[in-house]
Amino acid sequence: MFILVNLKAYPCDPIEVATAARDVAESSGVRIAVAPQAADLSRVAETDVETWAQHVSSNGHGSYTGSTLAEAVADNGAAGTLINHSENRRKLADIDGSVTAAERAGLETIVCANNPTQTGAAAALGPDAVAVEPPELIGGDVSVSTADPGIVEDAVAAAAAVDPDVEVFCGAGVSTGEDVAAAADLGASGILLASGVAKADDPEAALVDLVSEI
Amino acid sequence: MFILVNLKAYPCDPIEVATAARDVAESSGVRIAVAPQAADLSRVAETDVETWAQHVSSNGHGSYTGSTLAEAVADNGAAGTLINHSENRRKLADIDGSVTAAERAGLETIVCANNPTQTGAAAALGPDAVAVEPPELIGGDVSVSTADPGIVEDAVAAAAAVDPDVEVFCGAGVSTGEDVAAAADLGASGILLASGVAKADDPEAALVDLVSEI
Amino acid sequence: MFILVNLKAYPCDPIEVATAARDVAESSGVRIAVAPQAADLSRVAETDVETWAQHVSSNGHGSYTGSTLAEAVADNGAAGTLINHSENRRKLADIDGSVTAAERAGLETIVCANNPTQTGAAAALGPDAVAVEPPELIGGDVSVSTADPGIVEDAVAAAAAVDPDVEVFCGAGVSTGEDVAAAADLGASGILLASGVAKADDPEAALVDLVSEI
Amino acid sequence: MFILVNLKAYPCDPIEVATAARDVAESSGVRIAVAPQAADLSRVAETDVETWAQHVSSNGHGSYTGSTLAEAVADNGAAGTLINHSENRRKLADIDGSVTAAERAGLETIVCANNPTQTGAAAALGPDAVAVEPPELIGGDVSVSTADPGIVEDAVAAAAAVDPDVEVFCGAGVSTGEDVAAAADLGASGILLASGVAKADDPEAALVDLVSEI
Repeated sequence: MFILVNLKAYPCDPIEVATAARDVAESSGVRIAVAPQAADLSRVAETDVETWAQHVSSNGHGSYTGSTLAEAVADNGAAGTLINHSENRRKLADIDGSVTAAERAGLETIVCANNPTQTGAAAALGPDAVAVEPPELIGGDVSVSTADPGIVEDAVAAAAAVDPDVEVFCGAGVSTGEDVAAAADLGASGILLASGVAKADDPEAALVDLVSEI
Repeated sequence: MFILVNLKAYPCDPIEVATAARDVAESSGVRIAVAPQAADLSRVAETDVETWAQHVSSNGHGSYTGSTLAEAVADNGAAGTLINHSENRRKLADIDGSVTAAERAGLETIVCANNPTQTGAAAALGPDAVAVEPPELIGGDVSVSTADPGIVEDAVAAAAAVDPDVEVFCGAGVSTGEDVAAAADLGASGILLASGVAKADDPEAALVDLVSEI
Repeated sequence: MFILVNLKAYPCDPIEVATAARDVAESSGVRIAVAPQAADLSRVAETDVETWAQHVSSNGHGSYTGSTLAEAVADNGAAGTLINHSENRRKLADIDGSVTAAERAGLETIVCANNPTQTGAAAALGPDAVAVEPPELIGGDVSVSTADPGIVEDAVAAAAAVDPDVEVFCGAGVSTGEDVAAAADLGASGILLASGVAKADDPEAALVDLVSEI
Repeated sequence: MFILVNLKAYPCDPIEVATAARDVAESSGVRIAVAPQAADLSRVAETDVETWAQHVSSNGHGSYTGSTLAEAVADNGAAGTLINHSENRRKLADIDGSVTAAERAGLETIVCANNPTQTGAAAALGPDAVAVEPPELIGGDVSVSTADPGIVEDAVAAAAAVDPDVEVFCGAGVSTGEDVAAAADLGASGILLASGVAKADDPEAALVDLVSEI
């Protein structure tokens, strides 16, 4: 299992969460990464935590102002990127372009999707993984792997039918080690989460709990 | 083969093109439809030509101002709708929603895509057809079925791999009966075209030529 | 006072509301218009009610699929158009373009804005009017003219400081004749409303009440 | 005069341009800043050049993935931000929100606009400056201050009519010290430029020329 902690625009200290993630990854052997604001990327990467971008644009080098260039996030230490998060929905053509741009820059890719149907569509674009996150569960206390396990199973099946090399992550409401174990049982290869760690009083303790059943 | 004439925002007389399309459909037995501006839909449908919308929104009834409600275009005579045309690119989640909304309103659906990869992704959303239109050929004089037949073949293969029930249309640069025949030979079930008819001095003659090899 | 009834994507019968609006306008002498779905425009205009579009695009004639061409809505009977409604927010450059496109097609224009600051900005683009609608009050039971009269007064002042020829409308929560009278007292030249009429059991009675204090 | 060098997504070395800008600012006494990719901000700021963001989102802290938080760019050394660049057009409501977000984070603001009309509208939102950049001149060899001096004068007048505290910058095609001097003569308080420095074989020499007539 791969645990990706999305820091969104939360008022947390990105270095504190990054340091905790690095330490728990080292002590547990579980792969854990942190996705900070683009402006915080280089400082987060300096902690030696695995660092991801929250988004990259579909454009390459050129006249694009205010875009997030895949090469720029890679140069500043990112190993991968989210694409099409539910808080940053993109056009189909741009998701295709962002996956291509990210691969060109050497970044791993996770494309987000609302439901099993969109998971199949996203898998057809050839990312490394698709994360299924029902919008109504994002930010809540109920894990998709508990509340609606059928969605995770259906997403795993939808991706496999299109491209068996594409992994499926699940997100939305995951906050405990049991949720993570349930997701793994349903066929998920990883977990996207955010507030459960980023807003925790003790991010390191939250991460220790999350990896406890892996 | 199904010929769909997209009137875009061209300064043509929609009733003149609709009447020509109706007459050529009747005389040739080929299925031909016209997609006018939403505001022209009811008047075009009154000519008894098969009428399509250029776009429908993903929303249903409710507080959505300036959207194009699937039910409203159906009530005014539309039989189907384009979705995600290259001049009206949409978010993946909204394409999914528009296909669902169109089906709920009883409309056929053609989702547009730039390339074979996106054709596979669009097919996963379950429309009736996907139209592959390389953006660089749209509005030009070179037909995709002539200039780059591999794109049409690859799109047909990509759609079939995801869902064999989804047909593939091709567009971009089609202007003659030979182009239509070439597209059919490559596996396309229909043709999207626009300026070749809508900007023709004699739309009826242009349509007669287009269906001549079917 | 000018009363503009926005039918949004509501499941009402647009012809029933249009007929009621026409009748109340005639009997009361108050200017009342109805803004239906673009696809319903020509049928609504045939009732002889003053008909408005909910949106027009910034483009002119050309290769624009799924846009709402200002000329097309004018040709089908529209006398004016909303632009930048809070449910259809637009880029600054496109609002500028839509005002220009609407004027070229002979349409009156009302640009919507969230607050007095944006009202001043919208007024600088030269529309006929700006409608100030605090998003938090839209669709509710509390009228902006009652709940926060300072917003209407500030919007009137902001528009006047930029261009004294631009009128100010107010919207959001207006549902009674008293709300309309209060808006007029605050300097508003018109009212935007939607659910208060479109969702009323008796749209004609709702309109009769709305104009009762004018 | 203030010279702001927008590095866009150019394949230049941001540290090389930043160092050159810092050195020319120091030697000439002219205010010069550099706007790199968000991911490069902290490294660029470490050179001690004045550093700007290319864009900030309208949101504050919260659940916003892939946005560019004003506080995050400020924390990483940005002193100001562009908003609504022609390559990153924004909704009117979001420009208003981004100006507010930037001010809350202590950033200076320059809102971009296509023409004098939009300059007036942007000035009504209360930024520190508006930059007028006719899209057809961006990236070209012809300076707006030479090609169409009336646009700069009209923009200065439009901003002054709305808010005399808002300065006007000009951009698009500026590449020589003469262009800068011409802009100053027309009433501009600063210059936005990009390729003239970022793509120059010798960025420092390009900057020395640009400030030579100030």
